[in-house]
Amino acid sequence: QKFCSQCATEISYITPPDDNRLRAVCQSCGAVHYQNPRNVVGVLPIFNDKILLCRRAISPRYNKWTLPAGFMELGETTAQGAMRETQEEAGAQIELGPLYTVINVPHAEQVHFFYLAKVLSPELAPGPESLEAGFFSPETIPWDELAFRTVITTLEHYLDDKKNGVFDSPHKKPPVHHYDVPLPMHDF
Amino acid sequence: QKFCSQCATEISYITPPDDNRLRAVCQSCGAVHYQNPRNVVGVLPIFNDKILLCRRAISPRYNKWTLPAGFMELGETTAQGAMRETQEEAGAQIELGPLYTVINVPHAEQVHFFYLAKVLSPELAPGPESLEAGFFSPETIPWDELAFRTVITTLEHYLDDKKNGVFDSPHKKPPVHHYDVPLPMHDF
Ligand SMILES: [Zn+2]
Ligand SMILES: [Zn+2]
Repeated sequence: QKFCSQCATEISYITPPDDNRLRAVCQSCGAVHYQNPRNVVGVLPIFNDKILLCRRAISPRYNKWTLPAGFMELGETTAQGAMRETQEEAGAQIELGPLYTVINVPHAEQVHFFYLAKVLSPELAPGPESLEAGFFSPETIPWDELAFRTVITTLEHYLDDKKNGVFDSPHKKPPVHHYDVPLPMHDF
Repeated sequence: QKFCSQCATEISYITPPDDNRLRAVCQSCGAVHYQNPRNVVGVLPIFNDKILLCRRAISPRYNKWTLPAGFMELGETTAQGAMRETQEEAGAQIELGPLYTVINVPHAEQVHFFYLAKVLSPELAPGPESLEAGFFSPETIPWDELAFRTVITTLEHYLDDKKNGVFDSPHKKPPVHHYDVPLPMHDF
């Protein structure tokens, strides 16, 4: 940020008197332009024991496979955002299930939320952000071609929980897995 | 937002060709200035069956009581932010416990996270954002003087879970309660 978005004055990076970190401050109109982490919201969509994945048509990770997910927008809940992203990226009809993973990705300044979801029909209509969308049995998941580590760990938790019978009690909510993604290896 | 924060040109509110909602777009440098919901991170701090609350020295809800909480900052996790806020607002030494509530507040464009925490010492040192900080037994919680509904519902979940023995198994994680705060009554 170089200029004040309210009055177009050049920004000063200073620590305000009542604060303890550098902020983008406008010394003309007094505005403090805060920056905060963003939420990525998505779903783990299941249809007859198969998992719906989309192949990305956008950067980053063009051509890699992902769960439907994207940035949470103003005015929506995490659940509404997750449903919207599923519609936009896969064109899938779903019934949203419980919140399943909440994963901090501090080096990307993001928090990722994935909900379980039941796909209601095999018909898909991937949008412009996806090259294609398709269903994968656990054995055919393209592990080496997945876009993000939060997608990998969310899928791993799901397959573990399924193996361990976590979803076998129809009236019991599954646990919410919450954890942090460690720094990428290239930072070491 | 009136001006581009990159080049100081006046902003146009338009829907970009590959998008489906109005964005703050700079027609000079091409920057799209996205706005996204923010996360509020805090703790429910327990000391000998009492709950630590802070009386707010800032708006909104000046003079009302709250759990220690504030906006998540860039580069930190939700847990790190919750610990930082506890230090800043109450000066309390804590050991962070599990994530306990994740609450959407869509009309405020926020998601609130509260962690359980064990207070390690009764000594407090409230910072400039708090008028005072103190410990409350369940019977003395100032319900009518609490600052936010997410604080009220987080405390209600805690007292319910405690009554129902949820915290009695030392090796079992408590559930993560996740839900949405409904619209404020004055919207009806
Ligand atoms: Zn300004
Ligand atoms: Zn510009």
